[in-house]
Amino acid sequence: MSNNEIPYKIYLEESEMPKAWYNMRADMKNKPAPLLNPGTLKPMTLEEMSVVFCEELAKQELDDQTRFFEIPEEIKSFYRMYRPSPLVRAYCLEEKLGTPAHIYYKFEGNNTSGSHKLNSAIAQAYYAKKQGLKGVTTETGAGQWGTALSMACSYLGLDCKVYMVKCSYEQKPFRREVMRTYGASVTPSPSETTNVGRKILAEHPGTTGSLGCAISEAVEVAVGTEGYKYVLGSVLNQVLLHQSVIGLETKAALDKYGIKADIVIGCAGGGSNLGGLIAPFMGEKLRGEADYRIIAVEPKSCPSFTRGKYAYDFCDTGMVCPLAKMYTLGSDFIPAPNHAGGLRYHGMSSTLSQLYDDGLMEATSVEQTEVFKAAEYFARVEGILPAPESSHAIKVAIDEALKCKETGEAKNIVFGLTGTGYFDMYAYEAFNDGKMSDYIPSDEEIAKSLEKLPKV
Amino acid sequence: MSNNEIPYKIYLEESEMPKAWYNMRADMKNKPAPLLNPGTLKPMTLEEMSVVFCEELAKQELDDQTRFFEIPEEIKSFYRMYRPSPLVRAYCLEEKLGTPAHIYYKFEGNNTSGSHKLNSAIAQAYYAKKQGLKGVTTETGAGQWGTALSMACSYLGLDCKVYMVKCSYEQKPFRREVMRTYGASVTPSPSETTNVGRKILAEHPGTTGSLGCAISEAVEVAVGTEGYKYVLGSVLNQVLLHQSVIGLETKAALDKYGIKADIVIGCAGGGSNLGGLIAPFMGEKLRGEADYRIIAVEPKSCPSFTRGKYAYDFCDTGMVCPLAKMYTLGSDFIPAPNHAGGLRYHGMSSTLSQLYDDGLMEATSVEQTEVFKAAEYFARVEGILPAPESSHAIKVAIDEALKCKETGEAKNIVFGLTGTGYFDMYAYEAFNDGKMSDYIPSDEEIAKSLEKLPKV
Repeated sequence: MSNNEIPYKIYLEESEMPKAWYNMRADMKNKPAPLLNPGTLKPMTLEEMSVVFCEELAKQELDDQTRFFEIPEEIKSFYRMYRPSPLVRAYCLEEKLGTPAHIYYKFEGNNTSGSHKLNSAIAQAYYAKKQGLKGVTTETGAGQWGTALSMACSYLGLDCKVYMVKCSYEQKPFRREVMRTYGASVTPSPSETTNVGRKILAEHPGTTGSLGCAISEAVEVAVGTEGYKYVLGSVLNQVLLHQSVIGLETKAALDKYGIKADIVIGCAGGGSNLGGLIAPFMGEKLRGEADYRIIAVEPKSCPSFTRGKYAYDFCDTGMVCPLAKMYTLGSDFIPAPNHAGGLRYHGMSSTLSQLYDDGLMEATSVEQTEVFKAAEYFARVEGILPAPESSHAIKVAIDEALKCKETGEAKNIVFGLTGTGYFDMYAYEAFNDGKMSDYIPSDEEIAKSLEKLPKV
Repeated sequence: MSNNEIPYKIYLEESEMPKAWYNMRADMKNKPAPLLNPGTLKPMTLEEMSVVFCEELAKQELDDQTRFFEIPEEIKSFYRMYRPSPLVRAYCLEEKLGTPAHIYYKFEGNNTSGSHKLNSAIAQAYYAKKQGLKGVTTETGAGQWGTALSMACSYLGLDCKVYMVKCSYEQKPFRREVMRTYGASVTPSPSETTNVGRKILAEHPGTTGSLGCAISEAVEVAVGTEGYKYVLGSVLNQVLLHQSVIGLETKAALDKYGIKADIVIGCAGGGSNLGGLIAPFMGEKLRGEADYRIIAVEPKSCPSFTRGKYAYDFCDTGMVCPLAKMYTLGSDFIPAPNHAGGLRYHGMSSTLSQLYDDGLMEATSVEQTEVFKAAEYFARVEGILPAPESSHAIKVAIDEALKCKETGEAKNIVFGLTGTGYFDMYAYEAFNDGKMSDYIPSDEEIAKSLEKLPKV
């Protein structure tokens, strides 16, 4: 079929939606390194994992052999409320850029949580419910994950306790209220409700919190409360597994119109969106069936792929979680307060780290002001107001399309538009007022933080 | 086809999208009363209308004979960026309510403006551009219309000057920033930029503004600036015409699956959404081809249909605009500061007013706290966080579905979900904190305001 007949938005029929999640690890020759018990430095066992996580999720976390995991019927029902998400042909953007490239984006923002996070939230809530739990605990920074989890728990009738980094709790009251509207309890972290919270408050009375501290509080409550487990929205293998629904739908929509992607681009924080988007493309690449350029885009202020080290590190600043081998800037690394909250993580998914180390994907980093320039340009042309995180992918997609303009190549560029920017208007305001700046950490800063990597 | 085979979301193919807007007035035996020149009290002529409005739009405003207006190609292109909107089968809501009714909602919130307003914004901006104008002016209260118009103007390269009621400008900084991101200039009203603004500021130095004042400022700037016209997001016949795309898509989606609606429900402020949603259903009713129950839902705090008078009245508090015959509470009526900003208008579309007066549709009013109860219930079950305005329709749809539960009838209930509530979280917060109250105006209050109706 000629590209001219491609609609603005390709929607799959509900019958064409993925029936199973795809586990990239099954096709990797070099498997991602296992999580290590921080006490013994030995690979985490299912039993150890199950203290903190739901059992089924712990199994998914450890399983690097099973290629497909069937999506349970109840999750498929929930998916049908907001999925399939559209694969949009960016005709207007192409025309404005004057590029011969064909640009497609998978838009994951058309649900109330405003991002792709819901894909894994409903899966994790489902397995918690199936295990007979009363509820789950989690942390949230920018708030997208907390919102998604609140929605999923509300749907299944599970309790949801969210520890929200205090500065976000205060600066993003709308996010907080969305979570409350979905029945979640939202506690600013650090709080008086946990030992670790009380300890931190005693030591740093005025602190506005950190993701590391919020994780520690959420884990403490999960481990100490009958009928509760802890869930996490990124980094983990299980999350990438659930998020593969993004890539599977994208690939199916392209296949339906006989389109072969040349470049696949996604933003990368902990890796949940990127790992999901690229999954089936990387699968073909791993099996030698096709080749794709796959590009991870990260902020210059938090460049774990492009300037980090591939090593075992702590996943949280509190150092209570298992160690993961990943591209990391060191768990002590404090990213500048840029506006892409979802990309401010010192490390990166172990699976993606291994793929990157094996040369199977590229990574690049971009400056915040350039990202917002691209975001505003995109919004005005394509209508959608993108999240700052997503706009990292937009920036690089535009750059690649402009390269095609120079070379005259009609490449098919696919990128992930992970979410909307409705709750990021302070960031847009700073940009509109010319008050946004860039921050690039010095080599010394990164080296200092990497000095504290654990000796494994 | 059996109802069991109906997908969660019915999407039309792009080829099935409406090619023309439907003008209900063409099928009305009793035509809506004409707008009157406030000076002469005679029907407004095309020439008089064209001082303020674009000529093509003024023609549409006056034309009660032409049944279909072809949608220009450029507008259809823009529509394809966010339309067709889904007609959602509310399976989860039905199950939760335990009703035999089948509930469908047309979801218009899946675009950055967050509401149906974009359907008319792009049309009005298109005709302004076609007339060779430099830009348009408008007012906005809650901000949905201003956001939609900013997006449309940005797409077409038109300048957009928005006068935003000062209290909204200050209380809804996010809305303001979305408009600025789309390149609009947003001025808090009253302002020093107009005669009427300066006059009001001199008389009432601390005023936080009103919609009536913002209209007057926007009209003054349009009339006084070369290359500018004024545009309006509701009430007018032209707006209902453009919004008919909502109803036409809804009807096409139902027809595709052989579903006959029994009840069609929409919220009503000025009438833009309701008039658009019901258009093709009302058309069949007017032509005697089918029957439908059609229900307008308004807030008890601003009950123009249910407690107003059908009479000529001023459209704005400044009394500079033409007189319209409509159900009105009087242009002096100040609705309580409830949270459904889009429904706080003292009057109602002339077309809908005539249809209501002819007994072709019903109207009902609901209390704010009941509306938010329904909104939260809906959000938790169906996932989407609804706008307060839209939630008026949700409340009545749920009530009708519960009646079906009592009678055992499997009625098909269709309602309009006009937008999302992302920018209404202060309202949800008030509800979540138990601090929301209801307000019902007294008979005396309404009678007093109606005393000032113009003598026509």
